[in-house]
Amino acid sequence: MQQLKTPRIGIDLMGSDTSPEDLFRAISLFAQKENSFCPVIFATSDIIQKLNTSFKTVTASSFIAMHEDPIVAIQTKPDSSLSLGLAALAAQEIDVFISAGNTGALLVGSKTILKTLPGIDRPALLALLPTKKKEVAVLDVGANTSLQAKHLIQLAAMGLAYQTSLGVQNPKLALLNIGKESSKGTPQLQKAYRHLSELKGSLFVGNIEGRDVFEGDIQVLVTDGFAGNIFLKTAEGVASFILSELESELPKETLTKLRARLHYTEYPGAILCGVNGIVVKCHGDGSPEAFINGIKGGILLAQNNFLDTLKNQLELFLPKRP
Amino acid sequence: MQQLKTPRIGIDLMGSDTSPEDLFRAISLFAQKENSFCPVIFATSDIIQKLNTSFKTVTASSFIAMHEDPIVAIQTKPDSSLSLGLAALAAQEIDVFISAGNTGALLVGSKTILKTLPGIDRPALLALLPTKKKEVAVLDVGANTSLQAKHLIQLAAMGLAYQTSLGVQNPKLALLNIGKESSKGTPQLQKAYRHLSELKGSLFVGNIEGRDVFEGDIQVLVTDGFAGNIFLKTAEGVASFILSELESELPKETLTKLRARLHYTEYPGAILCGVNGIVVKCHGDGSPEAFINGIKGGILLAQNNFLDTLKNQLELFLPKRP
Repeated sequence: MQQLKTPRIGIDLMGSDTSPEDLFRAISLFAQKENSFCPVIFATSDIIQKLNTSFKTVTASSFIAMHEDPIVAIQTKPDSSLSLGLAALAAQEIDVFISAGNTGALLVGSKTILKTLPGIDRPALLALLPTKKKEVAVLDVGANTSLQAKHLIQLAAMGLAYQTSLGVQNPKLALLNIGKESSKGTPQLQKAYRHLSELKGSLFVGNIEGRDVFEGDIQVLVTDGFAGNIFLKTAEGVASFILSELESELPKETLTKLRARLHYTEYPGAILCGVNGIVVKCHGDGSPEAFINGIKGGILLAQNNFLDTLKNQLELFLPKRP
Repeated sequence: MQQLKTPRIGIDLMGSDTSPEDLFRAISLFAQKENSFCPVIFATSDIIQKLNTSFKTVTASSFIAMHEDPIVAIQTKPDSSLSLGLAALAAQEIDVFISAGNTGALLVGSKTILKTLPGIDRPALLALLPTKKKEVAVLDVGANTSLQAKHLIQLAAMGLAYQTSLGVQNPKLALLNIGKESSKGTPQLQKAYRHLSELKGSLFVGNIEGRDVFEGDIQVLVTDGFAGNIFLKTAEGVASFILSELESELPKETLTKLRARLHYTEYPGAILCGVNGIVVKCHGDGSPEAFINGIKGGILLAQNNFLDTLKNQLELFLPKRP
């Protein structure tokens, strides 16, 4: 049984906004406290030499920087730390791959090297957000800025499969829109609304406005990557703003508790859904803190045998193709 | 001088989610405390008879309900409270018109009855949001869900004119996007970015992500009505969520102070920018509290002779037409 094994977590040290050395230091400290995973470090040789580590390492001859063109980078740098990590995941030499680097390259690389799951045209980024009740899975939060109705329906299936895989019973699903009526929003949203209304078991509750998502009555929020990214970043911005306002007002303990509940770095970043492998994209600030939470999230997904469950669930939720 | 007169605030009691009687009660209480305005009540005859008020009233023979088609409603109900209010504003019988009713009808009616300002093709809804520093004016927050680059540039001009009218020196402007690079987002955003880069005085600082808006370094945020509505509603939702989380943690006084600073009902709703008259759309929940804040906002705009200043400022910021 795969979930009893210690998960091998592949970690790309390169190409993020934090230095590889700082990331490595945080990972080492975390690994000392937490022995439930086996780290595999992907980095260039100069970095690996400096680290002088007993962890398993994979030496890359290059890395993909934040502002490189994703398609060109994946095509021309098969020996980059990111490409080697994805290849190791495809070869089942690791169970999870984590990166805080170039999101576009991670997407293009995942699609090219890992391949998409049956019935899925485009991988998506799924983020978990806190609400008044349980967490809501939001997808897409930035992989594809414009999507057709059929892609929105695939997002719905992935979101439902994700939540069901993690034990949520009868997750409720809604489309992010600017009003409840089925006539609201883009033609793509209107068409997706019509199709999702035919979902069995009334899992689809209709359109929802950004304001109401945080009531916690839905567990899956479907949106294209543009609106989803605006939604996610705005939520983070407001949370951070309010926490900063409260700094002088609250006892330190309450503030820490609240920060843990609300602050994005406590969340495992985004999960790249729809490819044949568990890929975690750490939060954009790429802080060591965000990286550790990415690792925690990755361990949880591997231990729960997430990918196999997701594949099974997808078959239930994806519309049958003729 | 117009700003020395007591502003005549036209108030539509009809068509919102709160009963006309409840709205009227709140307005009466507020008018007892605050004698800096002269209310003019627009409602149907049955309501006006019930109210038995000494305020000036205008009797409508119908009203526009929340879910009516805006274009049809404006065409077929010239004697509705909303149409009569806009007509009174056009005839300068009132200085401000406030409604918590059908937003679409208010937009269509304003464009038809008041007409747009020179250089403006489409009126927009402008909302003020709190940040770590000064308030940011966000537009459009829901009037037009899809906009061309030229409309985004008109929004920029209206936002800059708005902030300058209210005394903000050299307001900074940004486009709401999913990354800072000029290549991010829709073709419309990319084109607007290129045009706005040519603005004099480096008022345009580029693209901004939802997260960074709350740092308070920009005073005008330009977006189409779809993304703008998602942004606004999400900000409201997160603020309300965090405030509810804090209810048991904070002393009542601190909570009240924080709520006043963050909660949307403390803001005057949205200002309908770009038409020849001051029109305030109260916050969607249409609560008496939101209505009173709409009135406060309207008084401030009238006292500052907002419309004339806006027209002058618009000439400075709008691109010259050949």
